[in-house]
Amino acid sequence: MSVLIVGTTALDSIKTPTKENPRLLGGSASHAAVAASFFSPVKLVGGVGEDFPKKYIQLYRRHKIDLEGLQVLPGKTFHWSGEYELNMNNRRTLATELGVIETFSPTLPKSYQSAPFVLLGNIAPALQHAVLDQMQKPRFVIADSMDLWINIALPDLLRLLKRVDGFVLNDSEAELLTKEDNIFRALKKIHMLGPKYVIIKKGSHGSILSGPKGFFICPAFPLPKVVDPTGAGDSFVGGIMGYLASAKGSIDANLRRAMVYGSVTASFCCEGFGLTRTTKVKRADIEKRVMELETLTQF
Amino acid sequence: MSVLIVGTTALDSIKTPTKENPRLLGGSASHAAVAASFFSPVKLVGGVGEDFPKKYIQLYRRHKIDLEGLQVLPGKTFHWSGEYELNMNNRRTLATELGVIETFSPTLPKSYQSAPFVLLGNIAPALQHAVLDQMQKPRFVIADSMDLWINIALPDLLRLLKRVDGFVLNDSEAELLTKEDNIFRALKKIHMLGPKYVIIKKGSHGSILSGPKGFFICPAFPLPKVVDPTGAGDSFVGGIMGYLASAKGSIDANLRRAMVYGSVTASFCCEGFGLTRTTKVKRADIEKRVMELETLTQF
Repeated sequence: MSVLIVGTTALDSIKTPTKENPRLLGGSASHAAVAASFFSPVKLVGGVGEDFPKKYIQLYRRHKIDLEGLQVLPGKTFHWSGEYELNMNNRRTLATELGVIETFSPTLPKSYQSAPFVLLGNIAPALQHAVLDQMQKPRFVIADSMDLWINIALPDLLRLLKRVDGFVLNDSEAELLTKEDNIFRALKKIHMLGPKYVIIKKGSHGSILSGPKGFFICPAFPLPKVVDPTGAGDSFVGGIMGYLASAKGSIDANLRRAMVYGSVTASFCCEGFGLTRTTKVKRADIEKRVMELETLTQF
Repeated sequence: MSVLIVGTTALDSIKTPTKENPRLLGGSASHAAVAASFFSPVKLVGGVGEDFPKKYIQLYRRHKIDLEGLQVLPGKTFHWSGEYELNMNNRRTLATELGVIETFSPTLPKSYQSAPFVLLGNIAPALQHAVLDQMQKPRFVIADSMDLWINIALPDLLRLLKRVDGFVLNDSEAELLTKEDNIFRALKKIHMLGPKYVIIKKGSHGSILSGPKGFFICPAFPLPKVVDPTGAGDSFVGGIMGYLASAKGSIDANLRRAMVYGSVTASFCCEGFGLTRTTKVKRADIEKRVMELETLTQF
């Protein structure tokens, strides 16, 4: 089955202590779409400017990503530039040029409206609502977000949480949203805001699912070298949704395994700048790491 | 089989905004010994002052801990006092009175010298050496330590690492010791210092084992309320050694499961001040949480 993915389609300039990487393909939708494409057909919703490099259109196409919902708009592509600290854990934004994203309004092609799986990737909650408004009756909707929207668009976000099946956020965002520093108390409070499934991302410490079948403690794949974690969270949720859309059976039966596939897909993302490593991955590479993670956690 | 445990035997006074907990039983050896006692006979090595309350001797005895190696010395018991902030996250040391621990020198009773499992709990590396010097031919020796000894007794500690099978430390100590912020690179460097098995503790994020059979990612038990994490690390390694000493088969075959038992024992420790919760635990409570952890990590 197919996954509809909305989010930002951006150009990222990423500085690290050792390297500069100008205008890489980035954005939450790009990372999530490439990750999901390893498992299922993807329908991308986004907006880029006239400056958007052709090679990135070709990159999407190589991953068989449906681009009917990608609008090319007059103006410049959303451009983010940032810098990582030495430990690669803290990211500092240097500049954010919204470009066409400022006035972007998603219009879904007819062929998109019946997609059974919907990933509302990290973008303004108002745009996540706009996509949901155009969908017929999706089987499973998951939303991602970020601290920015908790800070400046909380009413929209809270309204969104009542419309989705699942919500993904990181541990610091969970604390910001709930004022709870304990992850398990935070999870309880987030369920009360609406979502049946809540996933808290903890970077290299893995992730935690809370759902009707209780908690699942999902490991991160051990990485001796993290080159650039930008987009890892988007790859994670993209992998989850791609796997879910490919799997037979109920969400409850598949979600844990989907998280492991998401975690592994995200691990590749961290091993290169932007999407440079992820786009070289084969499905067999993913299966190999999933099997390794099984070995690494059995007792 | 029995576990010999050396470390501090202390009195901890823990203040919170709502409660004072004066002169609770504490210290690395106390926590580790009680934890190990759920699984195997324990031989305690330590020094207390003449003020050491009889009720704590009785507490050790209830846990069938062999006290032949516990010296009662002229002077006062090692006393630590600290205070938690309102959110219970940050602990501040108010006073550290070394007392008899300052001049304590471990002398092992003859019956201790053939113990097959040795836990060198957190105490000055010189004293850990002194214990090892008196042992005949232990089957498995593991050492714990802390940032203090890395900072003020590094040569002693480095010499110790060449004499032990396993070494346990937390993630920030691993970084302090190796100057590596990546946990997997840090593990590699610590192996080069001597130990065949290295375990890095990450608090509520679980722990990582590195050994001849590769890595093991060990989960922490989910706790919606942490009352006092003091001693959790000591309980963890105590539980590991107690379980290992009780299990048939090779260290490699048992160490993963031992870590899960250690992790669960540590979870109880966090649920009360000092040892107040741990001492109420039954073996069946531990088995129940181990089974829950299995369920929480399967995919």
